[in-house]
Amino acid sequence: MSVVIHQLNREAFAPFGDVIEAGAGELISINDGTTKRHNDLAKVDVAAEGGRPMISIFESRPFGFPLEIAMLERHPLGSQAFIPFDGKPYLVIVAPAGETIEKDSVRVFRASGNQGVNFHRGVWHHPVVVIEPMSFLVVDRGGDQPNCDLFHFPSDGQRLVVESPDG
Amino acid sequence: MSVVIHQLNREAFAPFGDVIEAGAGELISINDGTTKRHNDLAKVDVAAEGGRPMISIFESRPFGFPLEIAMLERHPLGSQAFIPFDGKPYLVIVAPAGETIEKDSVRVFRASGNQGVNFHRGVWHHPVVVIEPMSFLVVDRGGDQPNCDLFHFPSDGQRLVVESPDG
Repeated sequence: MSVVIHQLNREAFAPFGDVIEAGAGELISINDGTTKRHNDLAKVDVAAEGGRPMISIFESRPFGFPLEIAMLERHPLGSQAFIPFDGKPYLVIVAPAGETIEKDSVRVFRASGNQGVNFHRGVWHHPVVVIEPMSFLVVDRGGDQPNCDLFHFPSDGQRLVVESPDG
Repeated sequence: MSVVIHQLNREAFAPFGDVIEAGAGELISINDGTTKRHNDLAKVDVAAEGGRPMISIFESRPFGFPLEIAMLERHPLGSQAFIPFDGKPYLVIVAPAGETIEKDSVRVFRASGNQGVNFHRGVWHHPVVVIEPMSFLVVDRGGDQPNCDLFHFPSDGQRLVVESPDG
């Protein structure tokens, strides 16, 4: 079952998290006017159960297309932000927070290379889907507790499929 | 008084903070081997007095060269991380945490476009010094308390000067 790819924007993504991009957030001029600060672009929510914010780098390779959506994951204790380094587009696959996933609630977005995303705590998402190899800065939760649940879709021939990165 | 520019590396920068780059930190293979996670690259220290982590984007223009180092700032309540988007080198000017600054303790580093920095809480630093216009992702502290102290060097003709971005 082919899925439609939507262009990522803040309104469409709001049920799932934040789009991290210049132009979002309050614009503040600092450092004698040499710097524009686009302020406070994401709800970083990592403090549950003694968690702490963590900064990491992900170097990702493509899964390839067509991509069958076999599994989504969620982090029940924290948000997770991905900000691309390389200016290349990538795909974001999400479903609303909740104990299970209705297949028709899955959304696929195409992010530009100037857009990061912050998955809110508990939002289901696919491992990052790049079109060509690229890197991300990741801001998520550090802590000792288990913080990744997986949801596997039935292998009934009815899984959603992303035919190509262009939709 | 001209200052020497040092190439940024983790050992030299350790008294001031973290260098955020692939290769630092533990390397973890995730997502069926499609992603390398360079894990936990910076000490994000923003929780003092009810603070929270904040993600922002800075768009910065050059101050120009020669650059007289007239002022450094510090954030007494939190760390501040800068990660460049554009793959361009930039300069980092720091002095150790403390109530005052000895002029000969100031260090100037040249970061590659693949290196971010995280200033530890209280470390003195110059507003970001770019060589050409560029953008950074910034992870610092959100909160209502004042969190920026300034130290002005005397205007006695003896201030440190960065002659050019190349040293």
